[in-house]
Amino acid sequence: MSDAAISPTTELRPPNADTLTELEHIVGGQHAVRDPDRMAPYLTEWRDRYRGEAAIVLKPGSTNEVAAVLKCANAARAGIVPQGGNTGLVGAQIPDESGSQIVLSLERLVHIRDVDLASNTMTVEAGLTLAGAQERAMSVGRLFPLSLASEGSCQIGGVLSTNAGGLAVLAYGNARDLALGLEVVLADGRVWHGLKALRKDNTGYDLKNLFIGAEGTLGVITAAVLRLFPRPAEQVTCLAGLRDLENAIELLARMREAAGPMLTAFEILPRIGLDFAIKHGTDLHDPLRAPHAWYVLLEVSSPLAGETVHELVQAQLSDAIEVGVIEDAVLTTSDRQTGELWKLREVMSEVQKYEGGSIKHDVSVPIGRVPEFIDRANDLVELMIPGARPVPFGHLGDGNIHYNVSQPVGMDKDVYLSNWEALNAAVHEIVLDLGGSISAEHGIGRMKRDLLPHAKGAVAMELMRAIKTSFDPNGILNPGKLI
Amino acid sequence: MSDAAISPTTELRPPNADTLTELEHIVGGQHAVRDPDRMAPYLTEWRDRYRGEAAIVLKPGSTNEVAAVLKCANAARAGIVPQGGNTGLVGAQIPDESGSQIVLSLERLVHIRDVDLASNTMTVEAGLTLAGAQERAMSVGRLFPLSLASEGSCQIGGVLSTNAGGLAVLAYGNARDLALGLEVVLADGRVWHGLKALRKDNTGYDLKNLFIGAEGTLGVITAAVLRLFPRPAEQVTCLAGLRDLENAIELLARMREAAGPMLTAFEILPRIGLDFAIKHGTDLHDPLRAPHAWYVLLEVSSPLAGETVHELVQAQLSDAIEVGVIEDAVLTTSDRQTGELWKLREVMSEVQKYEGGSIKHDVSVPIGRVPEFIDRANDLVELMIPGARPVPFGHLGDGNIHYNVSQPVGMDKDVYLSNWEALNAAVHEIVLDLGGSISAEHGIGRMKRDLLPHAKGAVAMELMRAIKTSFDPNGILNPGKLI
Repeated sequence: MSDAAISPTTELRPPNADTLTELEHIVGGQHAVRDPDRMAPYLTEWRDRYRGEAAIVLKPGSTNEVAAVLKCANAARAGIVPQGGNTGLVGAQIPDESGSQIVLSLERLVHIRDVDLASNTMTVEAGLTLAGAQERAMSVGRLFPLSLASEGSCQIGGVLSTNAGGLAVLAYGNARDLALGLEVVLADGRVWHGLKALRKDNTGYDLKNLFIGAEGTLGVITAAVLRLFPRPAEQVTCLAGLRDLENAIELLARMREAAGPMLTAFEILPRIGLDFAIKHGTDLHDPLRAPHAWYVLLEVSSPLAGETVHELVQAQLSDAIEVGVIEDAVLTTSDRQTGELWKLREVMSEVQKYEGGSIKHDVSVPIGRVPEFIDRANDLVELMIPGARPVPFGHLGDGNIHYNVSQPVGMDKDVYLSNWEALNAAVHEIVLDLGGSISAEHGIGRMKRDLLPHAKGAVAMELMRAIKTSFDPNGILNPGKLI
Repeated sequence: MSDAAISPTTELRPPNADTLTELEHIVGGQHAVRDPDRMAPYLTEWRDRYRGEAAIVLKPGSTNEVAAVLKCANAARAGIVPQGGNTGLVGAQIPDESGSQIVLSLERLVHIRDVDLASNTMTVEAGLTLAGAQERAMSVGRLFPLSLASEGSCQIGGVLSTNAGGLAVLAYGNARDLALGLEVVLADGRVWHGLKALRKDNTGYDLKNLFIGAEGTLGVITAAVLRLFPRPAEQVTCLAGLRDLENAIELLARMREAAGPMLTAFEILPRIGLDFAIKHGTDLHDPLRAPHAWYVLLEVSSPLAGETVHELVQAQLSDAIEVGVIEDAVLTTSDRQTGELWKLREVMSEVQKYEGGSIKHDVSVPIGRVPEFIDRANDLVELMIPGARPVPFGHLGDGNIHYNVSQPVGMDKDVYLSNWEALNAAVHEIVLDLGGSISAEHGIGRMKRDLLPHAKGAVAMELMRAIKTSFDPNGILNPGKLI
């Protein structure tokens, strides 16, 4: 891919001394960081995969300050890198190595501006953590269902800018489905006041969904109206052992039919993942008597108190065992047991570290094609790197598989990881052949930017570039990311 | 509003003889209509509110033919008016009066390209009727939940281009929530192949949601991947009589809490609407013993067979009567009774015709503010047109009210209707003051195009115009509509 094709029309410049002084003045000296030690946490991400440098880190305290910062940066042609909780997995939130970019942290915009119980909405600022939003919802008897591993640190502006997914997408949708309105500061400092709390609003083009998932390249989200939901009265969690993935698809169909919108999670784990978890996890045991090739972790959430849902799931599992769709299952009856089952799922990424290098893919295909995808990808891995160990797991209910591949036992880690791009390219070809996505939930950022044109095709790229050029003609917003 | 501000950058021209011949050649002579009688059904809408003229009506038989038509029209700078089932309520599908525009009917694109039960998706072409999509889903044991009064005639391309709403939005969302991917022909004839059947796909800007709701001004939708759902095993429908709308909001909160995602409809009707229905409807009776100021029609749909849901609704209604939230209720136990209750809701627009002129508003506000909106609007109506009779009804569960106002008894209809724009303007001011939308589900089209800049504000308008200019630089797509 030629970089020239996606370059902004004007050259970006490092902010000069006058610009830096003006920026410091806008946010207040104590919220403008130029000291290397204090800047450091904003310049690297937690896995240490991306490291950058910055001219300054700014922490504005209001939407107006964000607007003033962008107006100044746009006039100075200085690149701006918006940053939330710095938990992104594709490097979108980290500046480049030049030291000429400005990191714009939204961490001080933490107010909850409004909670409207009759309308089931909550208006929050971008810097509020996801956990903070969940807690506020819970405190008023509601559920904000978005749920991610990083929920303690990630911020609402970040989860919207990346259209985060997570564990509850099956029933509640992605981040974009959970926001009704946005407040966004544009590249030139104008503010789009789109904080509508409406379920229906057919007045022109859908600007909201354009900013959501744009990774800060079209504007900076400063606040959002979030949807709230009733809290379920009962939840039943189950771990089932299965012979193969076709049976997992069949179990999904059965559970959807039986539980409808009450089916709130449907995750898969391979046996090797369970082995890793039991071997390397803290105090984790095999919940079933015998080993199985695959496991489904499912959750049914119901507004109905009492035994109804437990009985429903129990009946489905009995039927499924009888006809051979599942081999065994455990259904939890206590918070402690439920926590133990989910722990097996939650440690899935972490425990792979103890087995050496892991080459990762965050992909999706149509749900019915997941078994075919995994078969083809596994064959390919064995062909390309004999002995490498696929650990595919994740959100089968959404067709989203984290296709991670652990290194062959005994291979040098760096040698193994040198296959990263080649394996990615080959696995992504299978994904695209099956009508899938090369980034189901993590986004594009720096990591997959060069892969995007091939995955999207020329027409989509041209449309996206036209939008980018219209919204940010000087190309100051998150340069070098996504597009 | 100055028209100059939104004009395309180039002048549109009537298609000349060569262009018309080329267009006829593309679709085949029998699918290119220039005979006035055969063109007539495409030039007026069913309420006869919009009438236009056209140079030609084209009925392409494939996506490739649509592409060739647009390429030719774009080269000739001829305006194209895409049309589905011609059921739109804001005139978006009708050409202007000049006779120089081309009507592009999608009615021949009716194939169902794919049904994927494991993935719960169906890929259909734009000209398939909504009823056709519903029926195909039903024939494979699934539900396509979008449900509108015009479902027998309206087409999938049209419902997506207008982001149609209807009766099941509360549980299943608007049309945009029900489409996973699109195939779209762009103004210059290029095709965007975005027919992904993925629940998660974070690869760049959300083009899909940009085309949905754009009323054919950014591209022509030729096919879509639709989401399918399990069919509920049981449905319970209830009509409750209430003293006031605050109690309707309270009942909504109680039912959401009790039934969660199983609450699939929550509509309101005023007593005057029921009076009209009983007086003018065919074989409709008052389902409750005494009259009530307001009525809620609600539906709960459950995957659970048996009595569970009936008991749940029954218990909620008993509680609600006990604490005075509702005054009376009937809960249906047969298809026939359910049909009778829904009939009261369905005739609500039609029966107003027999009471003379009706000035209409399709608006939304945050759900909790619906009572305030209706109070303020009713006061305003009485002030502006003493004796006029508000008949506000619709989707309380979505905050979407069809605020229709019947003329004072005995007033001349034309005199009454001459107040249309003034009353609209005044009611819309209240809507905007409450953070609402001047078009909740019908769209903008020709009807509300001049109102859009005031409702959206300068920043949103500039962003929308920038998108329009990027996507359709010659302004050939549905000129004079929406933007």
